[in-house]
Amino acid sequence: MFRSHTCGELRLSHVGSTVTLSGWVAKVRLMGSMAFVDLRDRYGMTQLSFNEAYSAEMLAKAGELGREYVIQVTGSVAERESKNAGLTTGDIELVVESLVVLNQAKTPPFTIENDTDGGDDIRMQYRYLDLRRDPVRANLELRHHLAQKIRNYLSDQQFLEVETPVLIKSTPEGARDFVVPSRMNPGQWYALPQSPQTFKQLLMVSGFDRYFQIVKCFRDEDLRADRQPEFTQIDCEMSFVEREDILQMFEGLAKHLFSAVKGVEFDAFPRMTYADAMRLYGCDKPDIRFDMQFVELKSPEAERDLVSGKDFVVFDSVDSVIGICAKGAGNYTRKQLDGLTDFVKRPQIGAKGLVWCRIEADGSAKSSVDKFYDAEALKSWKEAFGAEAGDLILLLAGDLHKTRKQLNELRLLMGSELGLRDPFNYKPLWVLDFPLLEHDEESGRWHAMHHPFTSPLPQDIELMHSDPGAVRADAYDLVINGVEIGGGSIRIFDRALQSRMFDLLGFSKEEAQAQFGFLMNAFEYGAPPHGGLAFGFDRLCSLFGGSESIRDYIAFPKNNSGRDVMIDAPSAIDAKQLKELGF
Amino acid sequence: MFRSHTCGELRLSHVGSTVTLSGWVAKVRLMGSMAFVDLRDRYGMTQLSFNEAYSAEMLAKAGELGREYVIQVTGSVAERESKNAGLTTGDIELVVESLVVLNQAKTPPFTIENDTDGGDDIRMQYRYLDLRRDPVRANLELRHHLAQKIRNYLSDQQFLEVETPVLIKSTPEGARDFVVPSRMNPGQWYALPQSPQTFKQLLMVSGFDRYFQIVKCFRDEDLRADRQPEFTQIDCEMSFVEREDILQMFEGLAKHLFSAVKGVEFDAFPRMTYADAMRLYGCDKPDIRFDMQFVELKSPEAERDLVSGKDFVVFDSVDSVIGICAKGAGNYTRKQLDGLTDFVKRPQIGAKGLVWCRIEADGSAKSSVDKFYDAEALKSWKEAFGAEAGDLILLLAGDLHKTRKQLNELRLLMGSELGLRDPFNYKPLWVLDFPLLEHDEESGRWHAMHHPFTSPLPQDIELMHSDPGAVRADAYDLVINGVEIGGGSIRIFDRALQSRMFDLLGFSKEEAQAQFGFLMNAFEYGAPPHGGLAFGFDRLCSLFGGSESIRDYIAFPKNNSGRDVMIDAPSAIDAKQLKELGF
Repeated sequence: MFRSHTCGELRLSHVGSTVTLSGWVAKVRLMGSMAFVDLRDRYGMTQLSFNEAYSAEMLAKAGELGREYVIQVTGSVAERESKNAGLTTGDIELVVESLVVLNQAKTPPFTIENDTDGGDDIRMQYRYLDLRRDPVRANLELRHHLAQKIRNYLSDQQFLEVETPVLIKSTPEGARDFVVPSRMNPGQWYALPQSPQTFKQLLMVSGFDRYFQIVKCFRDEDLRADRQPEFTQIDCEMSFVEREDILQMFEGLAKHLFSAVKGVEFDAFPRMTYADAMRLYGCDKPDIRFDMQFVELKSPEAERDLVSGKDFVVFDSVDSVIGICAKGAGNYTRKQLDGLTDFVKRPQIGAKGLVWCRIEADGSAKSSVDKFYDAEALKSWKEAFGAEAGDLILLLAGDLHKTRKQLNELRLLMGSELGLRDPFNYKPLWVLDFPLLEHDEESGRWHAMHHPFTSPLPQDIELMHSDPGAVRADAYDLVINGVEIGGGSIRIFDRALQSRMFDLLGFSKEEAQAQFGFLMNAFEYGAPPHGGLAFGFDRLCSLFGGSESIRDYIAFPKNNSGRDVMIDAPSAIDAKQLKELGF
Repeated sequence: MFRSHTCGELRLSHVGSTVTLSGWVAKVRLMGSMAFVDLRDRYGMTQLSFNEAYSAEMLAKAGELGREYVIQVTGSVAERESKNAGLTTGDIELVVESLVVLNQAKTPPFTIENDTDGGDDIRMQYRYLDLRRDPVRANLELRHHLAQKIRNYLSDQQFLEVETPVLIKSTPEGARDFVVPSRMNPGQWYALPQSPQTFKQLLMVSGFDRYFQIVKCFRDEDLRADRQPEFTQIDCEMSFVEREDILQMFEGLAKHLFSAVKGVEFDAFPRMTYADAMRLYGCDKPDIRFDMQFVELKSPEAERDLVSGKDFVVFDSVDSVIGICAKGAGNYTRKQLDGLTDFVKRPQIGAKGLVWCRIEADGSAKSSVDKFYDAEALKSWKEAFGAEAGDLILLLAGDLHKTRKQLNELRLLMGSELGLRDPFNYKPLWVLDFPLLEHDEESGRWHAMHHPFTSPLPQDIELMHSDPGAVRADAYDLVINGVEIGGGSIRIFDRALQSRMFDLLGFSKEEAQAQFGFLMNAFEYGAPPHGGLAFGFDRLCSLFGGSESIRDYIAFPKNNSGRDVMIDAPSAIDAKQLKELGF
């Protein structure tokens, strides 16, 4: 028996008893005739005490311990003279009577402490040591607890977790697949799933009624920061449902998780159409922790034009001038304003410039384009924004869609600068009525905005031929704090409609049959109305943890080149194995 | 809203209320002025009633329904005249007031009934229809419930479920890996994990203390019946444990599952050494639902020889004669005995012949080798076996190890023939003290019987140099009803011992470093004593379901060529994709 208790377990009630602990040496303090060792395991930290008067032999052994040695100690629990309220075991210490070094340890390349001295790269290479640090392990404990709560909640709601296959068939639609050569079927390949989409729809055809799975998915994309080639989804599907049923069910799940894990309660989640999200926030995942909605001084969609005809060529020559009002930012210095201009002019954002207008204490407006716009004009701006003394109006100009995108970035920056984006202030939002299709300039083809099984809104079906771009999807995203946590749709369950969709997407009958034939065939045998959604589990964990990085919530993440630097994968493989595969 | 209730929900208490159901048409019975339709969903079956007197329109609609049509009906719940006790909803029926066909269905290629008329191949091709059958869906419901219970039990025991990566590094040790070319790292490959073995050991180094994961694993093996290229393990690891801690923990889990799911309670599971299992049952996973232990009349390990020196060349020339006593099988006919002889002479078994000896009602023995063995000799056999009147002794002869293997097959056949292998009579057994190494004749090398991280029994470490084949591993298998459900070991946590192990396995320092360097390096930073095991989850499900086939418990299994015939995978992939991968 290696231990009678864990390092987080002993209390005053144990004083006087003899116990055995095992763990890692976190700290050794040698003080001449005495020594203290902090012994750590997953459950906590216990102070070990050594005293020359009690045992010179043990004291000598303590002196030989190094950081991260694995030891086993037996001794009696004693009340501490100076208690440590910051430690659950801070009332007691263990007076060591015997000590066994179970394993020595080289000095770690960084300190195993909450605030480590290790940089990102070294901590990734020694991930097994980084995982020894409390905050990193706490992230994975959170992940475990969230998964447990999700599974139990959905099980209670009659969902069945069904494992779908990992070795499936490649489909050119969507992102790039990872593929696996089949040795037994030369020249043929499996693909790793980007999602279990078709399988969960087949399970609905099978009458499973309510399905979920917490499941690894794979995308061979050029990795951006915080994208992983393998990621985990909470994948769900329900039969005999309309959109409202699904929103209710998963809003219920989200509320349950927030309540159980964070102690936060919510009223009904607000809802917003995609069109409004784009108009008011310039993006389909608005961060509504703060207001700062867009105001259009001029745009193809606006009924007014408050900027044209004043000889300001920049505003005259564009179709849109859109702005935000940053409450209380009127005190921004010239340098800060120049900083904002530099920000929007960065190539990633691509604005040509920034116009500002400050509302002074007396209510008058001062703008960077004063020479074109008189007090009267600026007053009309002020009113349009509902701006007050001390506010700062920021305007971008250009093409409607690009300007919205750029202004979204500026809005988020202002939100951050003004301290309006507290990670623990959770603001969920359903975004609805996405476009069904988006037009790809390059190929001249329509692409499914979500995937080819997404149903159009019933009232928009007739537009599929006349105006495909105007067709709205029966789709929904759950956005929390500006992050898309999950999304899904009501599916097409009618084979004729599915065929029309494939036609629209430019699939030939043969292509559609070759790639999705098994699903389309299945739909001929009695497919129920169904729909579902998928949450990004890595993202959900980071949201609950209050972090922006999903990597912190993955035990063994890969870097931006898709490498696991700890195990050094991918890597070369045996020539023999290549030959067996026919290469 | 598609339904107010499910098809399994309505009872007498609902009589008089108006409800809406949705589901599949299981059966239509047209009876002139009346009709009955069985409506099915996952939760049950409800009888819909149509009557000309009530609504001629509805009756007409019922007449147009086909099998597996998806319909929605609204009507009032009525008490049935003739109740069906075999159905949970058998007290009521729904008098239909409106009916909507949500989706038509082609006639399925086989009947969607408990006893279907579909053969294996057609059911695999239309797996989504096969899954619609109650017994198949019940298998996957069982799987869901088992997974839930396992997760909750282990969570309660402080285990954390940690997801380990799927895209890892190939290792030539063990079975063949599936590999995945990396587009971003040309010429390099990921491998899919055969198990998360090294990752779970790293998590122990990280201090996670108790880890589990229900996880997909992959092996590119030539598939035997009932092997799948992807399969699911319950993978577990614990720190600061000895073998006994692990046996107790997972015996507890198994007992919990049997109690919760099957209502079966157990005393402590019996234990047996590998050596005894081989000696008494000829295999390392004995089916102890029945006794019929081996008796050695002659063997290199036996102290006696009850067969040699009687001029029976077959028995004289071999090193071993081993048998079983089949209780009550003394009435086997000549034809049945010939059948047994044919069975053991099949090439898969490979025995040269079979000697039988029947104990007659008067206690005398009658044998197929009477002309060599007199009554006295046969009496000594009878006593060796403890055989009684009506029993049948069956003897095989040859090399010790081969004979044991052959006799194991014969014993299992006799167990089946005598009805001693009830699938719901669960008999668990721990098998302990496996050999650490096995010698590969072909390469002349030692191989790890489990894997290279398995610890030898402490008392056998000194044999590693002098007699590697005699070293026993600190390993254990859980065997239930002759099926290996799980297995594991205490791991080597000492780097020096691990190096010795790699030496024994013929790894050069460079090979060991290249393949397991990250694990061996990790062990230098304070590895705790640890061990674990993995259960085959597919197998566990089939055991609980009373089936021999794991395929029945996998939603979308592959066939013996590793093909998914439903989605037709693996398959050719786009030339463009191949080119991107550098092929």
